[in-house]
Amino acid sequence: MSLLAADLGGTKLALAVFSEEGILLTRDVADLNGRQGKEVGLLVANSLRERAARQAALGDPVRAIGIAVPGISRQATGTVWAPNIPRWEDYPLEKEVREAVGDIPVVIDSDRACCILGEVWRGAAQGCSHAIFLTVGTGIGAGILVNGQVLRGARDIAGAIGWLGLDKPYQEKYIPCGCFEYHASGDGLARVARAILAENPGLQSPLGEKKPDSITAHDVFTAYYQGDSLAVQVIQHAIEYWGMAVANLVSLFNPEKIIFGGGVFGPAIQFIPDIYREARKWGQPISMTQVVLEGAQLGGDAGLYGAGRLALEHLTSLNHR
Amino acid sequence: MSLLAADLGGTKLALAVFSEEGILLTRDVADLNGRQGKEVGLLVANSLRERAARQAALGDPVRAIGIAVPGISRQATGTVWAPNIPRWEDYPLEKEVREAVGDIPVVIDSDRACCILGEVWRGAAQGCSHAIFLTVGTGIGAGILVNGQVLRGARDIAGAIGWLGLDKPYQEKYIPCGCFEYHASGDGLARVARAILAENPGLQSPLGEKKPDSITAHDVFTAYYQGDSLAVQVIQHAIEYWGMAVANLVSLFNPEKIIFGGGVFGPAIQFIPDIYREARKWGQPISMTQVVLEGAQLGGDAGLYGAGRLALEHLTSLNHR
Repeated sequence: MSLLAADLGGTKLALAVFSEEGILLTRDVADLNGRQGKEVGLLVANSLRERAARQAALGDPVRAIGIAVPGISRQATGTVWAPNIPRWEDYPLEKEVREAVGDIPVVIDSDRACCILGEVWRGAAQGCSHAIFLTVGTGIGAGILVNGQVLRGARDIAGAIGWLGLDKPYQEKYIPCGCFEYHASGDGLARVARAILAENPGLQSPLGEKKPDSITAHDVFTAYYQGDSLAVQVIQHAIEYWGMAVANLVSLFNPEKIIFGGGVFGPAIQFIPDIYREARKWGQPISMTQVVLEGAQLGGDAGLYGAGRLALEHLTSLNHR
Repeated sequence: MSLLAADLGGTKLALAVFSEEGILLTRDVADLNGRQGKEVGLLVANSLRERAARQAALGDPVRAIGIAVPGISRQATGTVWAPNIPRWEDYPLEKEVREAVGDIPVVIDSDRACCILGEVWRGAAQGCSHAIFLTVGTGIGAGILVNGQVLRGARDIAGAIGWLGLDKPYQEKYIPCGCFEYHASGDGLARVARAILAENPGLQSPLGEKKPDSITAHDVFTAYYQGDSLAVQVIQHAIEYWGMAVANLVSLFNPEKIIFGGGVFGPAIQFIPDIYREARKWGQPISMTQVVLEGAQLGGDAGLYGAGRLALEHLTSLNHR
């Protein structure tokens, strides 16, 4: 029995075939090449149809298809909101894919939900019923598993952790993305570096030699490795926010694990002990002793594995009806 | 079919018989009269045995017993931690009650879990699968319903919302109770009033005429009704914290409703529109439009109703095994 998984990002589409035990059998990646709107939908649908046909020809037909999308999957309508894909405000992806693949069951969820499912299936959260995947990249999101199930909320937008308020008073600059994301996403690291440079015009730092708008999280880490005190300050600022966010998750959810992923974790994995130390100050003291913080084991493939697991769970639920 | 419910508080024990539709049939309250440790356990067990015997004699035997406790119910061991009952660090309540009531199934949960179950059964959260009961009294706790189930976490201590970190930097004074509870519980209102008075010795306020240690949340509300500017400031401070906490719950859980209860809500119910306004600044903007904030409909009986609902759910789960 094979499961077909797709992980759609803002710039590429990854496809994989999994066994029901979660063994990755094949893996392909296609570039979106600037596709927009329906072009992206057709790429997804056609790629899945072709791969399903190939599996059928191999005598190992696809039993279910899972798709991770970079945004919100609206379960009630089968439509997707994906901010980084132009004209995907409410895109009918489920219908499009169903028309392409015939009788194979299709299920779609957000990439953050898929990341925690992937780590539960084959990664750092195996055996957990209560675990959280914290993705810190350009933005920040959380995939939350409670009682062994993904937390979707009333209308599929649970886990919007970038909006966490962690420092009074409210500031207008939080409007586009929320307080936590403003300070501690990948973009946030660059923003904080720029703000410190703007406030301290004479500051000596390799970051000060760049055009302010061109500073990236990567530059901050590079400067950090060079011992730059501005970069140290930016990272310390982020650790405080990451720590508070972890503490708040622990106090509310009493999870077994919090898994860090996304482009920033990555290099920021080394700060997990510091994040734990910061979190321990704030969080429910007993819960804090029960949680384990660690990096994603599946790296950038967590969402792809999760899409496979999603397909498997969907198939199981269909068989129990 | 009747269900027997007990709601144990720090100073009293309420007992009720419910129909399976959630109709309250009888209700008694007993004072703990300073009982401690095993004396409290025996009071609970004996009261339940007597009531169960009376129901049996009436020809309407009790089918299941639910108990709400003021602390943590450890599901794995059947023991209870209740900070306000001396010597209930790990009290074997389940065993004690089972020995008293014979074959009747017994289930125990925290009062915060029971409050949301009660409001789902017969109160403000009827029909909700995703709802949160925020109790603000001496302390602060949250009963959280996700996917129609109470969120207990890995080891039964989810919902410890008093520990939410909402304002950097960390301060030592948060050690005993957490940042949110420090600023915005009933005790917190009094604490903040005392702190403002201490910093402003000449301040004219009816609160300044009391011994600082004797100021209560009730005094703060009384002064507020008299138009006292210090009390207004204290309430405004609490509204900011309540708003941030609501926003964070909304961003993480995407709930249909947040229900306010406990002694402070109560009088603070009038501030729900202000709390919503504050929350709307911080929270995920779409989720914020989907949530409804309101006061508990069952008042102080939410936990008692919830214990009845807990009994019903336990019975249903036993019948499905």
